[in-house]
Amino acid sequence: MADNLLYARLAEHLRRQIRRGQLRAGERLPSLRRLGRMQGVSVATAVEAYMQLEREGLIEARSRSGYYVRSSTMPLPTAGAMHRISRTPQAVRNPVLLGVLDVLAREDVLPLHAATPSPELLPCAALAATTTRVLRRNPDTALGYAPPQGIADLRKRIAWRYAQCGVDVDADEIIVTAGGMEAISLALRTVTQRGDVVVLETPTYYGLLQAVAALGLRVIEVPNLPGTGIDATRFAELLDRHVVRAAVLIPNFNNPMGSLTGDGDKRAIVAACAAHGVVLIEDDLYGELAYSGERPSPLRRFDEHGCVLTCGSFSKSLSPGLRVGWVLGANRTSDLLRAKCFSTVATATLPQLAVADYLSRHDFERALRRLRRALADNVQRCRDAIARHWPEDTRVSEPGGGLALWVELPQPIEGQALFDAALTHGIGTLPGHLFSSRGDYRHHLRLSCGLPWSTRIESALRELGALAGRQLR
Amino acid sequence: MADNLLYARLAEHLRRQIRRGQLRAGERLPSLRRLGRMQGVSVATAVEAYMQLEREGLIEARSRSGYYVRSSTMPLPTAGAMHRISRTPQAVRNPVLLGVLDVLAREDVLPLHAATPSPELLPCAALAATTTRVLRRNPDTALGYAPPQGIADLRKRIAWRYAQCGVDVDADEIIVTAGGMEAISLALRTVTQRGDVVVLETPTYYGLLQAVAALGLRVIEVPNLPGTGIDATRFAELLDRHVVRAAVLIPNFNNPMGSLTGDGDKRAIVAACAAHGVVLIEDDLYGELAYSGERPSPLRRFDEHGCVLTCGSFSKSLSPGLRVGWVLGANRTSDLLRAKCFSTVATATLPQLAVADYLSRHDFERALRRLRRALADNVQRCRDAIARHWPEDTRVSEPGGGLALWVELPQPIEGQALFDAALTHGIGTLPGHLFSSRGDYRHHLRLSCGLPWSTRIESALRELGALAGRQLR
Repeated sequence: MADNLLYARLAEHLRRQIRRGQLRAGERLPSLRRLGRMQGVSVATAVEAYMQLEREGLIEARSRSGYYVRSSTMPLPTAGAMHRISRTPQAVRNPVLLGVLDVLAREDVLPLHAATPSPELLPCAALAATTTRVLRRNPDTALGYAPPQGIADLRKRIAWRYAQCGVDVDADEIIVTAGGMEAISLALRTVTQRGDVVVLETPTYYGLLQAVAALGLRVIEVPNLPGTGIDATRFAELLDRHVVRAAVLIPNFNNPMGSLTGDGDKRAIVAACAAHGVVLIEDDLYGELAYSGERPSPLRRFDEHGCVLTCGSFSKSLSPGLRVGWVLGANRTSDLLRAKCFSTVATATLPQLAVADYLSRHDFERALRRLRRALADNVQRCRDAIARHWPEDTRVSEPGGGLALWVELPQPIEGQALFDAALTHGIGTLPGHLFSSRGDYRHHLRLSCGLPWSTRIESALRELGALAGRQLR
Repeated sequence: MADNLLYARLAEHLRRQIRRGQLRAGERLPSLRRLGRMQGVSVATAVEAYMQLEREGLIEARSRSGYYVRSSTMPLPTAGAMHRISRTPQAVRNPVLLGVLDVLAREDVLPLHAATPSPELLPCAALAATTTRVLRRNPDTALGYAPPQGIADLRKRIAWRYAQCGVDVDADEIIVTAGGMEAISLALRTVTQRGDVVVLETPTYYGLLQAVAALGLRVIEVPNLPGTGIDATRFAELLDRHVVRAAVLIPNFNNPMGSLTGDGDKRAIVAACAAHGVVLIEDDLYGELAYSGERPSPLRRFDEHGCVLTCGSFSKSLSPGLRVGWVLGANRTSDLLRAKCFSTVATATLPQLAVADYLSRHDFERALRRLRRALADNVQRCRDAIARHWPEDTRVSEPGGGLALWVELPQPIEGQALFDAALTHGIGTLPGHLFSSRGDYRHHLRLSCGLPWSTRIESALRELGALAGRQLR
């Protein structure tokens, strides 16, 4: 038989198995050598067959571990089914935002609600060793006040990390904060006044919505689209039409959607802000968590006018509990520093010394590679499990980085109802409407992929699927 | 010679020596037994002579160490020379507030500007040991997120400490914060809106003035008087006359003056707030630092209506750098908790675990006694040195607790000029006008007594006196 017929026949054989569910989403296909042996064809023919199925989107190669049956989950719609966008500046009106805290504090549930990496994925032993060493070497310094701006050695190391991705940052413009949220909160409080208009993405992190609501700011929204991220054209139009004071954006792996905004759009967004005198507060908490390993640029890289305030943190990459974040103050450093002084005075000293010591002695890049691989793997397995166990027509985000999966449930399943049902089964999730200024995304759910994969998670996802299915009836 | 003549003659002899400067301020007088031997009189006669001089205010008994020549510094005036009080609500207008940060961050000066206890006075070794133990026992917990409200065990221990001074606090209303300043800042942000009127003491801590200015609040002032503290009558009158939203007061050892407000006045202040629906934010950072060892009541003790939000911290008693404080949320706990979530999300975990472990294993009361004695001793020695080396007519506060001395310089010496001159000599101080909403207290200076006494401090105080003297010419 001619080679091209051989590979086509083999492809059809596999295609049928997949369609019948004999090969299931997320299942690993035999190696090329084994497939060749099993089917009595050459490795070259096996390669051709797999490549054909890959082109058809039925299977996918996963780095360093072979070919897998692709999830049959549908991607999120890029338009049409979009959430209503608030076109005129309005206050945040979303009462459910108030209730979320109880869940976040619960320790008796499987934490698929918390967008935080589990300790098993972080270099905890090295960090503990480094903390102990710092404390032994100089307990008086470690327990005394740090300067309000933060410890100089740590600030230099943060600046150096930006230099590695082509961003020129002066250590003197860095203010160390008690985590990334303090950085964003200080920036908002420094830049805005009650009644000012700010642009937020939709969907966006509920913490930003809460902060903006507490400050009495009004919001206009710019869509964040699956795959392409923030709609830069739309963003520029908004700035043309409204008097906007600031924007708070998550261009790198938006929380909850995991989308990445491209460099061209980033450049356009920064240019629009510079042209309109808008302060751009960048939430870059997930930039280090690109599954590809290629760290995307922060907006700051495209800023020539000092209009971007980039906020970062070690909470998602090293330790959530040490609460070490930072803001790049650009030409607002002294204003931000003043705000820091009457917010928390100075960031805790020991955590700062521990992170600086860790960065000087340990291979942070290696730890990051391990973390990224684990997250990419978890996201993949979660998507596979959803494809297998959740109702048909469930749509799932395809994040390029970060910790979250954004799930759109088929109507009439409500995110809040599924969230409630899951809680009674000991599973934490977050309902989609938390990520909206007006309580939309009623059919969405956010899941965290920060836990190492386990049968417990697999069965939780199976259970969630069953709970969702029950709501269809 | 009759006994009454003998003691009078002896008293006159000593009196003359003190007046001539042969016995100097702060100098220790011979023991009763030794004086009797030296002067050939009985111990009873020596007692009579010392008691006579004590009545005259020339000498004083110091607990467990005998009689000393009293500082000839004059106490602060209780009225008359008072700072102008702002009688109508006004914004904070004090540009110097902005410049103070540079000094606070400087590490190359003798830190008589920082109201923080030096590590030598704190149980650093025990805290370092307890921190290491916590980290070794469970690194994953210590490096992971704490609940936003704070670790339950720590909250229980804080509640228990309040119970010890007769205040009934539920651990569930305690929110652990990144130091006392975050507690106050959260309370202000939760309770007030731009343009609201708040009552502050005068003089008061510059951090409160900065926080109030940043929130765009208007201020009315109530005098804090040397010796008696907050003027409760005046406070009640203010609430009668103005629509006030909140008050931020430091009844226990006001910073900078160290004055203590009595229980009667505290009760009246709380009652006035309850009657007018005013939220009373209590800065109780120094309550544990009473030189007498008797912890004064927080305002909260007199609150029957949930109008007091008490803010506390371990920064002044255990470790400034761990940044562990708290707020008692009364019936506003959930509002405060929400504000905490979008301020710093949660307080760093390891510091919380370390403090809780320290409190469970070590004798905090003993460490506090040691700290209080050292501070009382330093304050005494600083006052003595000022009496000896500073211009005549320098007036000094007589704090009953805390870390600060408040010095009124004779005109025309300016606090700012002395502060500037001191900096060039490597001595940090703070100019008085920082403690005023309108830049008054131009002839005042605040000194910290948080460093253990040393010849370096003695010579710094001598140098400050010489610098002050030079400005008189």
